[in-house]
Amino acid sequence: MRVRKRKGAEEHINNHRDLVIENPELSKGKWHKLFGNNNPIHIEVGSGKGAFITGMATNNPNINYIGIDIQLSVLSYALDKVLESGQKNIRLLRVDGSSLTNYFDDNEIDLLYLNFSDPWPKAKHEKRRLTYKSFLDTYKQILPPKGEIHFKTDNRGLFEYSLVSLTQYGMTLKQVWLDLHASNFEGNVLTEYEAKFSNKGQVIYRLEAYF
Amino acid sequence: MRVRKRKGAEEHINNHRDLVIENPELSKGKWHKLFGNNNPIHIEVGSGKGAFITGMATNNPNINYIGIDIQLSVLSYALDKVLESGQKNIRLLRVDGSSLTNYFDDNEIDLLYLNFSDPWPKAKHEKRRLTYKSFLDTYKQILPPKGEIHFKTDNRGLFEYSLVSLTQYGMTLKQVWLDLHASNFEGNVLTEYEAKFSNKGQVIYRLEAYF
Repeated sequence: MRVRKRKGAEEHINNHRDLVIENPELSKGKWHKLFGNNNPIHIEVGSGKGAFITGMATNNPNINYIGIDIQLSVLSYALDKVLESGQKNIRLLRVDGSSLTNYFDDNEIDLLYLNFSDPWPKAKHEKRRLTYKSFLDTYKQILPPKGEIHFKTDNRGLFEYSLVSLTQYGMTLKQVWLDLHASNFEGNVLTEYEAKFSNKGQVIYRLEAYF
Repeated sequence: MRVRKRKGAEEHINNHRDLVIENPELSKGKWHKLFGNNNPIHIEVGSGKGAFITGMATNNPNINYIGIDIQLSVLSYALDKVLESGQKNIRLLRVDGSSLTNYFDDNEIDLLYLNFSDPWPKAKHEKRRLTYKSFLDTYKQILPPKGEIHFKTDNRGLFEYSLVSLTQYGMTLKQVWLDLHASNFEGNVLTEYEAKFSNKGQVIYRLEAYF
């Protein structure tokens, strides 16, 4: 998600270092301690403006959530949502999706979400797609054996690519939705993007897959 | 594909026993001999009225095709198409998809097509779907190692099910199309059903997967 630069974003984030974790490499292996409980930890890679992660955290108080995004302004909007929600089971991280093993120990994360990731449609940009094998290497390391990725997108090309990439990596599909909003899937939490585009009749694809 | 009973279908078939193979268990392990060459053999399970298998045989004279359907009337229409085409690289079989190992030896078949298979949408009929694991057992046995299944359908539920069923069986997706007719896929041969429904704007799904 690209957004215009937000004035004061950095200061806003610096005022809430309890929620937006600084130097996250120091928290590697210590996230349960940081949350103050042993509940499962779910992360969203590319959390954008935070509607999904905040909604999930509100609906599931016994799960800890970490929203990850590299863009400062985007993260500052997510911070607004976290503050509004008053939820204590969310943290935000401003890091790159490719470097997750620097911040999370093996098996430290219980579930990983990818929502409306950048499709990078050009073949030469394949390596930037969050379902490319080098990212899967990273996810596999921080997730438990048979750990799951839950992924949704409205981008047909990215979904087709991801089905192939995940299974060629050796992952197994647990469930697939080719029109999520027409299905009987319960408890779907909309992302900002999803709320905007599904109203326009865009099909939303979703999958759950495990290593 | 369900069609009305055709008068004279049986006699029609009996008049062309060079094309519609009788007692196919006797041909097990001898299909290359029957075709008179060592070209690859591709089969379509549920070949319906034969537009696909006949079109493929016409486009690919160096491949042998076998269309398989259990319904007499349907098979008799496919026979019409084979006769019209004048192609020598097609045979038809009136047998059930679950009994293929009775008619084909291990590795005797090079590629298997499933097109617009009956979706059997009720959960209690799962075992009848041609992508259910017991059918995959059969396909795996008659195909070579890493043998491929090419499957297309307009039925969203069946496609979702099949993606999961195949990968849970251990198969890997080679390629996926979530809107075949909007893609740059070349050489698509339409089935009767596909020609009829794609004109109505129905999305056609396709996958290639290997064991």
